[in-house]
Amino acid sequence: LRDLVPTLIGVDVGGTKCLGVVLSADHEVQATARRPTATSFDDLSDTVAAVVEELEGGAAEQSPIGVGLPGLVDRDGRLHAAPHLDDPGGHEPIAAAAALSDRLNRRVLLDNDATCATLAEWQLGAGRGLNNFVLVTLGTGIGGGVVSDGAVMRGEHGFVGEFGHMLVDPDGPACSCGNRGCWETFASGRALGDLARAAAERGGLDGVLAAVGGDLDRVGGEQLEDAARRGDAGAAAVLDEFAHWIGVGLAALTNAFDPAAFVLGGGLAGTADVLAGPLERWLREFLYSSRRRPVPEVRFAALGPMAGAMGAALLTAPGRRS
Amino acid sequence: LRDLVPTLIGVDVGGTKCLGVVLSADHEVQATARRPTATSFDDLSDTVAAVVEELEGGAAEQSPIGVGLPGLVDRDGRLHAAPHLDDPGGHEPIAAAAALSDRLNRRVLLDNDATCATLAEWQLGAGRGLNNFVLVTLGTGIGGGVVSDGAVMRGEHGFVGEFGHMLVDPDGPACSCGNRGCWETFASGRALGDLARAAAERGGLDGVLAAVGGDLDRVGGEQLEDAARRGDAGAAAVLDEFAHWIGVGLAALTNAFDPAAFVLGGGLAGTADVLAGPLERWLREFLYSSRRRPVPEVRFAALGPMAGAMGAALLTAPGRRS
Repeated sequence: LRDLVPTLIGVDVGGTKCLGVVLSADHEVQATARRPTATSFDDLSDTVAAVVEELEGGAAEQSPIGVGLPGLVDRDGRLHAAPHLDDPGGHEPIAAAAALSDRLNRRVLLDNDATCATLAEWQLGAGRGLNNFVLVTLGTGIGGGVVSDGAVMRGEHGFVGEFGHMLVDPDGPACSCGNRGCWETFASGRALGDLARAAAERGGLDGVLAAVGGDLDRVGGEQLEDAARRGDAGAAAVLDEFAHWIGVGLAALTNAFDPAAFVLGGGLAGTADVLAGPLERWLREFLYSSRRRPVPEVRFAALGPMAGAMGAALLTAPGRRS
Repeated sequence: LRDLVPTLIGVDVGGTKCLGVVLSADHEVQATARRPTATSFDDLSDTVAAVVEELEGGAAEQSPIGVGLPGLVDRDGRLHAAPHLDDPGGHEPIAAAAALSDRLNRRVLLDNDATCATLAEWQLGAGRGLNNFVLVTLGTGIGGGVVSDGAVMRGEHGFVGEFGHMLVDPDGPACSCGNRGCWETFASGRALGDLARAAAERGGLDGVLAAVGGDLDRVGGEQLEDAARRGDAGAAAVLDEFAHWIGVGLAALTNAFDPAAFVLGGGLAGTADVLAGPLERWLREFLYSSRRRPVPEVRFAALGPMAGAMGAALLTAPGRRS
């Protein structure tokens, strides 16, 4: 790798693993490294260091590192809230970029993981060429990012795009954030599982259950997708209900941001072909004045689980403002 | 007026009246003119022309005119949806800027009325000096606009800020847009009237009703405000419920846009001092991770009912990209 300068290195700290990538000068993924995610910030620093060391093959490099973290990362590289860490440092932000910089002995550029994914999908993926789009990551929760007038939006502090906690139903399920009825309680990967379990308990998923030996815990997005493709009406109904809730949020985001397109990422982007039709229908249904305006295109992310790490690497690209 | 060049002329087309202003070179309001709003676009053109003629005193001027219109105004000056017009031209957009330009025989710059108000509050009002804020107009409905990273956001088509139609409760009241539970069915001026009527029917506003001779139709924001100031618990409860719903939306907008502040405008901005306390509390309550982050300041608009027309005038300022 040392011969292939300038390469860019990025690390995406996810809920279960840290994924590091090396991007070549023409932004191809040259190498990857993975470690299980730690649950304290100190351990996490060691994990990131180990990933970087593996990527660099032990050479004494000093090129900057980009890091994407879940939670509220401000423009000065401080971490205000970190849902995946056991102890995110009380009510004071963690000076995360500075601490990682000390640990790695070089410049570290930090941003929210979904903002990193937005940057990557914009420059290298499904958002290429767009001046206005909204990325929505449908994973365990919902995150996101925004490209507006040809720039990645940051907001006052760097917290743009915490879409998962928009309230969409005051009588909805309890959310990990302490409120009820946040969008991610209806439209995330976890929520799809909840919808499926509720449908199964009502007897609406017998065909799907039969296919997994009656084990409700094995019914997830993939099983529903397979069953819907086989023509299972119960599975299709659950996916339609799920698409309905995604549509509620996409309509709100269209009213707010007026994007040319959505790019849907995260684990559920794989369910694209069965979700796309219902999603576009529900977006149109809920969008203000949708018969009198262009309705945003719904695209699916192109970079898969690499998007966050690739975007973190792009943070370090020469000439990019941090 | 002809001696005081360069002046800027703007017209705000509201639901009940067209308001025109002349701004001096240092952006003071020099003159105003009003006409009742028409309900067809052709009549509206005549109304705007009459307002401009009054402002110019009949002189044969050719300086450009800025016009703010409710509804979806695109970046090419076309009107896609116009809630206040009887016949907004079927499903095809109206080439409104071009038509007004023909009618007035000069360049006409068109934008959404709330976007105009955002520009005015940013340059001359409560948003001065901020790089990131969200304007929310609480009037008959809810509109808004966004300043992001030091620029007025437009979005792909020019439709940024249609916050009133974010869905906040699928079981909520029917909205004029055809959906249920849009934010403006809970948090607009009309919604406050609905909350008050519901409370009165439950017997919770007897003190307020006594003050208006038992006439429910006379109970509006002002009456509630007066009663709350006198210590009426029922009125305070209605205002708190109203603030709760405004807070739901402001929290969603904070999660989405990460503004440094909100600027609340529209007719209800006058209720500022009784709403401010409950509003800040509810925003904090609903905002994701609010104990670990700066919570946006809640400000009230400074330019009152002039904001839209002043912003429309600012659209024509030399050097401003249209």
